Amino acid sequence: MFIYYHQLRVLYGDTDQMGYVYYGNYGHYYEAARAEAIRSMGISYKQLEDSGVMMPITRMNVKYIQPARYDELLTIKTIIPRLPNRIIIFQYEVFNENKVLINEGETHLIFVDMKSKRIKSAPGLLLENLKPYF
Amino acid sequence: MFIYYHQLRVLYGDTDQMGYVYYGNYGHYYEAARAEAIRSMGISYKQLEDSGVMMPITRMNVKYIQPARYDELLTIKTIIPRLPNRIIIFQYEVFNENKVLINEGETHLIFVDMKSKRIKSAPGLLLENLKPYF
Amino acid sequence: MFIYYHQLRVLYGDTDQMGYVYYGNYGHYYEAARAEAIRSMGISYKQLEDSGVMMPITRMNVKYIQPARYDELLTIKTIIPRLPNRIIIFQYEVFNENKVLINEGETHLIFVDMKSKRIKSAPGLLLENLKPYF
Amino acid sequence: MFIYYHQLRVLYGDTDQMGYVYYGNYGHYYEAARAEAIRSMGISYKQLEDSGVMMPITRMNVKYIQPARYDELLTIKTIIPRLPNRIIIFQYEVFNENKVLINEGETHLIFVDMKSKRIKSAPGLLLENLKPYF
Repeated sequence: MFIYYHQLRVLYGDTDQMGYVYYGNYGHYYEAARAEAIRSMGISYKQLEDSGVMMPITRMNVKYIQPARYDELLTIKTIIPRLPNRIIIFQYEVFNENKVLINEGETHLIFVDMKSKRIKSAPGLLLENLKPYF
Repeated sequence: MFIYYHQLRVLYGDTDQMGYVYYGNYGHYYEAARAEAIRSMGISYKQLEDSGVMMPITRMNVKYIQPARYDELLTIKTIIPRLPNRIIIFQYEVFNENKVLINEGETHLIFVDMKSKRIKSAPGLLLENLKPYF
Repeated sequence: MFIYYHQLRVLYGDTDQMGYVYYGNYGHYYEAARAEAIRSMGISYKQLEDSGVMMPITRMNVKYIQPARYDELLTIKTIIPRLPNRIIIFQYEVFNENKVLINEGETHLIFVDMKSKRIKSAPGLLLENLKPYF
Repeated sequence: MFIYYHQLRVLYGDTDQMGYVYYGNYGHYYEAARAEAIRSMGISYKQLEDSGVMMPITRMNVKYIQPARYDELLTIKTIIPRLPNRIIIFQYEVFNENKVLINEGETHLIFVDMKSKRIKSAPGLLLENLKPYF
């Protein structure tokens, strides 16, 4: 299992008039966490894309447990629960400064060849970097 | 069953460098569709809020079927599948200009008393306006 | 002078915890207004782009006069004050439901050939459609 | 003069189909830089707000010099050019990884008493922390 912790600060622009982070902004938070999780392996999502592979999202599930508030420093635990083949699953657990789990989510991404637009298996570059964790 | 159709135009700022609507923006699209669906009943989400009821989201599930592109006029079908009690479920089906279903989602909202911060049942104002559809 | 009026509804996700539209969201509002202004001429920004011309923004100035609030139906008056040559200027006046001017802005866009990445003059397609207004 | 450097990573969701950071997202970048600049003084924007002072933006000017691209680590230099009285001015210079200045901006903020909604002078808490720099 691969695990990575990323921290981010809630901006004013992320909140809504309820005083909480707008529900629609968690996808952006997940992306930031996911990108840094991949970078921590020694590669980057950009490198994967530059090698001709796009990774569109096919599913996102979000469970809102407690609100996140302005200026909180959130910790996002990103988990890759198993080695990817045609799908890579990322799970997210968002904790506030009191270490309370406030949000959980999951995204499914697939691998698409940029030229042929065809679905393909996980690229070797990604698999090599992930294998040591499984 | 309550059904409402809302149309919206994909903005440049909604797209990402893949040339598609960014996966994190569908929550905003759902909100626009949901707000207009409620308005079509003769009330508004703002009215509900002004009467002291907040409706935070507890779940969102999104299934990305095909990409949406810049400047497309999307049609969002919003469905309330059953009369709410403690939870109101909204389902969304997003169609592109060729009437192809490109995205499906669901959000769960609860009712919270603004003063006591306690969860409560669906307010009468909403139920009265929804009953004729069930 | 070319003038066009566009209306848009303030979403929950556009507000921040001050209860007003977040200052950073006006660029998106201006884009929506600008795109519909161009469409009203009988062409579309997408058509211009499909013909090989990008229109990156080089300047944006915004003056925040009064706040915009959730669920307000805003009217954005878009003005093209003069025929473009190397730069096209769009001016925006945002009015709330009480017809009060709450925000003013201006954006400068240039024309770039997508292939050569070189700056060029306003394309004929745009000029033809604009000339009748000047 | 007060100067602070903040770094941030360009997300996928920040880009648009031109492949660059969407022009409307710089306000969010400025906010992140501004909040960290204030925090570096030993206070936080949240503290100011908790003490009953809102700081709405009255002006924003942006000059787009070169595009910012996905995954770039941007450095934002935030400058407070003079001690605030009724207005506090923040200036921003955004540099890419090659230390090229790609964007410049300025925001004007005023101080508003949350209860009376009246404009007031810069709060003592802020002035005390800023004086050493001037």
